[in-house]
Amino acid sequence: MRAGPSQDEIRRQNLGALLRYVHIHGPTSRAELTTALGLNRSTIGALTSDLAAAGLVTEGPPRETGRAGRPSLVVRPDPRVYAFALSVEVDRLRAARIGLGGEVFARREAPRPAGLSTDATVPLLAAMVKEMRQVVPDSAVHVGDGVAVCAMIRREDGTVSLNSDPDWMTALGERLSTELGHERPAAVGNVSDLSALAEHTRGVAIGCDNVIYLYGDVGVGAGIIAGGRRITGHGGYGGEVGHMVVRPNGHPCGCGSRGCWETEIGEHALLRAAGREGGGGDPAVFSVVDPAARGDASAQAAVRQVGDWLGFGVANLVNIFNPEMVIFGGTLRDVYLASAAQVRSRLNAMALAACREHVRLRTPVLADDAPLVGAAELAYERLLADPLDAG
Amino acid sequence: MRAGPSQDEIRRQNLGALLRYVHIHGPTSRAELTTALGLNRSTIGALTSDLAAAGLVTEGPPRETGRAGRPSLVVRPDPRVYAFALSVEVDRLRAARIGLGGEVFARREAPRPAGLSTDATVPLLAAMVKEMRQVVPDSAVHVGDGVAVCAMIRREDGTVSLNSDPDWMTALGERLSTELGHERPAAVGNVSDLSALAEHTRGVAIGCDNVIYLYGDVGVGAGIIAGGRRITGHGGYGGEVGHMVVRPNGHPCGCGSRGCWETEIGEHALLRAAGREGGGGDPAVFSVVDPAARGDASAQAAVRQVGDWLGFGVANLVNIFNPEMVIFGGTLRDVYLASAAQVRSRLNAMALAACREHVRLRTPVLADDAPLVGAAELAYERLLADPLDAG
Repeated sequence: MRAGPSQDEIRRQNLGALLRYVHIHGPTSRAELTTALGLNRSTIGALTSDLAAAGLVTEGPPRETGRAGRPSLVVRPDPRVYAFALSVEVDRLRAARIGLGGEVFARREAPRPAGLSTDATVPLLAAMVKEMRQVVPDSAVHVGDGVAVCAMIRREDGTVSLNSDPDWMTALGERLSTELGHERPAAVGNVSDLSALAEHTRGVAIGCDNVIYLYGDVGVGAGIIAGGRRITGHGGYGGEVGHMVVRPNGHPCGCGSRGCWETEIGEHALLRAAGREGGGGDPAVFSVVDPAARGDASAQAAVRQVGDWLGFGVANLVNIFNPEMVIFGGTLRDVYLASAAQVRSRLNAMALAACREHVRLRTPVLADDAPLVGAAELAYERLLADPLDAG
Repeated sequence: MRAGPSQDEIRRQNLGALLRYVHIHGPTSRAELTTALGLNRSTIGALTSDLAAAGLVTEGPPRETGRAGRPSLVVRPDPRVYAFALSVEVDRLRAARIGLGGEVFARREAPRPAGLSTDATVPLLAAMVKEMRQVVPDSAVHVGDGVAVCAMIRREDGTVSLNSDPDWMTALGERLSTELGHERPAAVGNVSDLSALAEHTRGVAIGCDNVIYLYGDVGVGAGIIAGGRRITGHGGYGGEVGHMVVRPNGHPCGCGSRGCWETEIGEHALLRAAGREGGGGDPAVFSVVDPAARGDASAQAAVRQVGDWLGFGVANLVNIFNPEMVIFGGTLRDVYLASAAQVRSRLNAMALAACREHVRLRTPVLADDAPLVGAAELAYERLLADPLDAG
């Protein structure tokens, strides 16, 4: 039970709201801010001055509008403020330096050997950051680090595979900050959650408060936004939709159960349905989806079968969450595009009309960048919550 | 995008926080309020005076504590403030007059003929309220009405059955207020959502921020609380877990799909498994659960079968939501109690260790009162959000 905020808390909330607004929407005139934030002109002026004094925004005249009258000053995110965003993926590591406002200043990428441990991952991530750091201007201000991790967690005994493990993620964030000499631990989230956050903030799901972002690779997880907020569950393990059993006594799953959704729609399921061997990732999916597109009957049958199961699970989630949008990310993007008819057909047959009639099925617009964009948003969360106390 | 609150909004937030605190926790000393709400003594004094002047709280000396020193004044919900709570159930209608603070002053109950339409339901509900109103003291202050509705929605064409229909619920609330001559429409919610709210506020799930309340009767729905907030979905249709398909090509469901969870764990499933005919409700469940408890082998087999499917779906929900608690309400209470071993066994086999290790399986402590208690909480929401503007 908490009471309302104090005077000082209000000011900080307002500073955060203004900074978040220009971070998301880009350069904005004082007049627009007054309307968007519901604050009067003098308050906007005072907040902007505070943020400018802290080096978080700049103010200047607008680009020529051609209109008469004195133009309203435009508030811009200060281009010197930046965060590092990192992404630990199945077969590669990525890093980017991303400015307040979302501009990507620099990128790095490195291969990730299969099964690389955390201990071995941290120095590789840190090396990419250190390399980017060498060319950062002296005037630039680093405000945090965010890391997206993909389905890669496998306990020591090899029996459990999860899309995320909060303890492991915390450890990763701490080791990384130690390696980089950064004061605060990097904020770490799983790829499904952060992709959902990215698409919700800067992608296809802007303005949607109820979103399910399905992410597929060897496993399947979901980033879920309900009522505008990320659903993470009690211990941070929420969204393990890949382990929703859709087929009693179906194929054995790495988790120890049988018939989990990911045994029917993951990469291995697609390869198995097509009678193919091979590794994973986009090439595996492409090795089935591409021949299917070119008319190969057995590949088409495999795509239809997997698409049918994809729609099956989506229908269940639509009944449970009544979302506005379902986004198909990771390897599920191409599976969905190749089997949209099956997915839609299952949805129509299985989901309640009331739950499905407003749901839009979409692919990510940020594509491969979603984990990095989401990791950057995570890195900025602290600053945006309390701009003047994040130093 | 909204900025922080104004001075006046803070005051109203604080008034709401204080009133909510005594509404939930009962009589509380000023000293405790200072600690609980994080406000200083003079602020607590001013807020209390405002609420007392508005007739929402009273202040007085504490019961004798035996301690030395001047005792802190105790703030109590004003016993004159009340709401009407109503519950539309499969076979009965209930009503109660419930005071701020949660005390039940009066109750009424009436049978509900099967298939009774909304038009016919409203006058019956109103009649119970009018009867209670006759003996309300002149000094009493009515602040709102709340209604819980159970799974009863069936579209005109008979093909869709839902646990709730927001449009229908809005219409019910408006017609009821017209009938009663109350200015504001009654707030309406479905029984699963409101039972979850009730148990979260005053029952077994106090302090749990991630809760799934399963409610069974002819259908199965869930009230879901994630991160401390009710999950309702885009159109208000979220929580239709009874239509999660658990058995591809299973029994046909009223919704038009096959193998929905409720076809395996609803009342009809239990009767079918036991080879019995009959109506629904608690008597139907009792007609199987009771002989099972007394050693009837076929009833025991039926309970085990249904319990196995109950655990199956719970495991899926645990993987999706990572809740702290799952509550078995409605007819699922007795099914769960009779088959806890099967439920637990399925959970262990199917749910990820990380998701299940902290989950508690519970039955409601508010029992049959949960819908009424939840309806009252709904009725009080407006007052508690803004105590001085709810007149």
